[in-house]
Amino acid sequence: MSFTYVARRSFSTTMSMASSELSAIRHLVSISDLSTPELRSLVSRAAYHKKLIKSGKASTSLPLQGKTIALLFTKRSTRTRISTEGAAAYFGAHAMFLGKDDIQLGVNECLYDTTKVISSMTSCIFARVNKHSDIQELCRYSSVPIVNALCDTYHPLQAICDMLTIKETFGNTKGLKLAWIGDANNVINDLAIAALRMGISVSVATPQDVNISEHVQKVAEEVSEETHAHIELTHDPKIAAANADIIVTDTFVSMGEEAQTKRKLAKFQDFQITSSLGSIAAPGWKFMHCLPRHKFEVTDDVFYGKHSIVFPEAENRLYAAIAVIEALVVNKGKFIE
Amino acid sequence: MSFTYVARRSFSTTMSMASSELSAIRHLVSISDLSTPELRSLVSRAAYHKKLIKSGKASTSLPLQGKTIALLFTKRSTRTRISTEGAAAYFGAHAMFLGKDDIQLGVNECLYDTTKVISSMTSCIFARVNKHSDIQELCRYSSVPIVNALCDTYHPLQAICDMLTIKETFGNTKGLKLAWIGDANNVINDLAIAALRMGISVSVATPQDVNISEHVQKVAEEVSEETHAHIELTHDPKIAAANADIIVTDTFVSMGEEAQTKRKLAKFQDFQITSSLGSIAAPGWKFMHCLPRHKFEVTDDVFYGKHSIVFPEAENRLYAAIAVIEALVVNKGKFIE
Amino acid sequence: MSFTYVARRSFSTTMSMASSELSAIRHLVSISDLSTPELRSLVSRAAYHKKLIKSGKASTSLPLQGKTIALLFTKRSTRTRISTEGAAAYFGAHAMFLGKDDIQLGVNECLYDTTKVISSMTSCIFARVNKHSDIQELCRYSSVPIVNALCDTYHPLQAICDMLTIKETFGNTKGLKLAWIGDANNVINDLAIAALRMGISVSVATPQDVNISEHVQKVAEEVSEETHAHIELTHDPKIAAANADIIVTDTFVSMGEEAQTKRKLAKFQDFQITSSLGSIAAPGWKFMHCLPRHKFEVTDDVFYGKHSIVFPEAENRLYAAIAVIEALVVNKGKFIE
Repeated sequence: MSFTYVARRSFSTTMSMASSELSAIRHLVSISDLSTPELRSLVSRAAYHKKLIKSGKASTSLPLQGKTIALLFTKRSTRTRISTEGAAAYFGAHAMFLGKDDIQLGVNECLYDTTKVISSMTSCIFARVNKHSDIQELCRYSSVPIVNALCDTYHPLQAICDMLTIKETFGNTKGLKLAWIGDANNVINDLAIAALRMGISVSVATPQDVNISEHVQKVAEEVSEETHAHIELTHDPKIAAANADIIVTDTFVSMGEEAQTKRKLAKFQDFQITSSLGSIAAPGWKFMHCLPRHKFEVTDDVFYGKHSIVFPEAENRLYAAIAVIEALVVNKGKFIE
Repeated sequence: MSFTYVARRSFSTTMSMASSELSAIRHLVSISDLSTPELRSLVSRAAYHKKLIKSGKASTSLPLQGKTIALLFTKRSTRTRISTEGAAAYFGAHAMFLGKDDIQLGVNECLYDTTKVISSMTSCIFARVNKHSDIQELCRYSSVPIVNALCDTYHPLQAICDMLTIKETFGNTKGLKLAWIGDANNVINDLAIAALRMGISVSVATPQDVNISEHVQKVAEEVSEETHAHIELTHDPKIAAANADIIVTDTFVSMGEEAQTKRKLAKFQDFQITSSLGSIAAPGWKFMHCLPRHKFEVTDDVFYGKHSIVFPEAENRLYAAIAVIEALVVNKGKFIE
Repeated sequence: MSFTYVARRSFSTTMSMASSELSAIRHLVSISDLSTPELRSLVSRAAYHKKLIKSGKASTSLPLQGKTIALLFTKRSTRTRISTEGAAAYFGAHAMFLGKDDIQLGVNECLYDTTKVISSMTSCIFARVNKHSDIQELCRYSSVPIVNALCDTYHPLQAICDMLTIKETFGNTKGLKLAWIGDANNVINDLAIAALRMGISVSVATPQDVNISEHVQKVAEEVSEETHAHIELTHDPKIAAANADIIVTDTFVSMGEEAQTKRKLAKFQDFQITSSLGSIAAPGWKFMHCLPRHKFEVTDDVFYGKHSIVFPEAENRLYAAIAVIEALVVNKGKFIE
């Protein structure tokens, strides 16, 4: 059985020059683009393909043989690149990596022209751009699915990966508590929505004066109502960590913010994840981090210790990308239940 | 049925160390390397594969699986790269992109050594070099087909693509008039010969003191005699545009000429393609451009208007590359009639 | 029949976090990792796949379809890259090239984290790093086979390739004499061991004060005892060249040593390979060089003359990489006899 497509957020569907065919293209800009059943479908399919691969019985049908998936990466992103290329190869597609030296969006020609051309010769575009508005423009003009492979506002592939990691660690997701202790960034924006959709309550601790956007708060509240999972915003790491099943953090200084490192780190004095903080979490609590990691964020004994599931989490990026390519490209926007 | 190979231009066949096998290798340096039936064959096959791909019934035989096609790009060329990688993938070949940071022709070792080595480990080389003489040297030393993916003198892949675009737009090519209004560059050098071979009359308007080379004029006259299509050289855009079915232009400042931009653009004052200029063209005239485009060359209302076929044209680069790989690599120099 | 794996050198097996499965992973760091039958197996299989490819009957089974092989290249290496990508494609694997701009080992995160992550999403890593210790660390942490694609101490792929080249040139290897006239570098370190294993006596002429390491000397003596082939160390090129069946040299200035070029070259005054030096070699002697080549090392008449087998040698890099991928990845560490 498969869901039929219903446009959920205007910015994630093709708005311009839309023939009826174009308007049916499914993009993935943020987790908010997905209904709860669609997100659950992606997580299930990611687990399914992981099992297949681990068993050595991975599909040999290669439904995307002869086709090309473009990786339009204006910023470096090793993990995202490796997982995307691996996922494309899994389906037999050719992954074409276009880095900042290969293509400069908006420099030699306008984004509209570039998008029209690239999408006319490929089957999908994974875009790792800086500005969220660039992703929105790509979706507007592209004739093939656009997948947001990290922008300054969202990181949906990481959130899908994290749901898979939590589900396979705890067996179930419903009723768990996830604590985010860190910056109000692209990762938590999608992670919060994803967790709430999967029935996980979320407690977000950010420094004073650092807050997740009102838009994300609003979406989170809507989803919370739908799934009866709670969202809590605080500035106290201890409140977030208390009885948490999962503690998650990320870099405190995002790419592009390096100039402000010192000033930024000062805000995060009490935000390092330590065993001591973990002692107030639930027994058997797990630590997650989307990597790369710096010691400022988490101590070695937590990061490499028994609570850490960061490496299985990283590996799951591959299966998340596989699930997304399957839904958007192989199955043309239909999600397998 | 297939043509047997007859060497047409010495510079496009392997001249050095030629065993009888080597001398049979077919390269594509410029449209002049192709007989009229061979060019028609490429255009037909490009249309054939486009139809297959659009119908979703693309071949799954992948005749080049396990093989590698090298992209030796000493200069950036996004469209050429994407179309070549996509065409290689279409046949199952691995496209190996070697940019200017990966390989520096003639720097660490002489071109002879590099060509011998790369050609011994690959099935074909698409070369995007600067100097035409580099392409000629590659052909001389390579044991596999060399495809000129743009040099300072020729651009055969664009010309094949343009013939496909014209044929599918007008149904036929014979008797049409094509106006080139722009620089005397690599694109028109091959486009003129290709159009004449397909029975299209060509009117080339270039600024005063800017003229296509005597060599190209000579070849054009020979082809004109063969196909009874006319070639006209002028310095007046209006003469070229009058009753033209297709108006084509390109950048006025080629890569490498950026330092002279101001001086160069001054020459092209009256060469911008506008609706007003189009009003003296044939009813239903079409506008073409190989992209990327700058506003100086063509107004927005033409470029994005109903006369423009620039985006189908760009997409056709993929099918042109497919047809060339099929003829030179899959069919080892035999052209399907 | 296949050999069962026995750990031969601790540094080439996975030492950390070793589950019983992990410890069975076979890496290739240097020729010393291979037993004599294993080396012979690789050379035979390289010849086998070369024959298949040349006959146009290459396998279409593509056992690594859907899988990814990472090329982790912190330094440029054209030949190594082309041969590795070609070999990956031969088996249907996707070759993912990660150059110094794509990934900086140890800069954004520690080598341990990077290795864990990359190896969790790929089937094999070909690493072209600078320091031997980096390769050792990769082996320690990786969950997939690591192949040393050139480090400052070893170059096993070149040595396998050279054994294939010698075997197909002379029909047999036993009883030949190989003269190395050049630097005490990574190439001879593995070439000497490989030659001795194949029954070829080795005479190494290096400048005064330039000596191959005591470790390599010790391993060479052990192998010499096993196979009854002799190793001789000298500082006189004439002693090495006398009656040699094969004369080999390499660059006198390795990557990273460019600053000392003048001082370094002074040491190699009498080390250029010339026809005159060849006149004291065995009749029918052959010249080999792993390329790229500089004139200082060898005269044009030798390099391009009838004694030279440098281009077949270069091409054989492809088949060497194929044999290694087959043994380590396709056959999971089992060597076909």
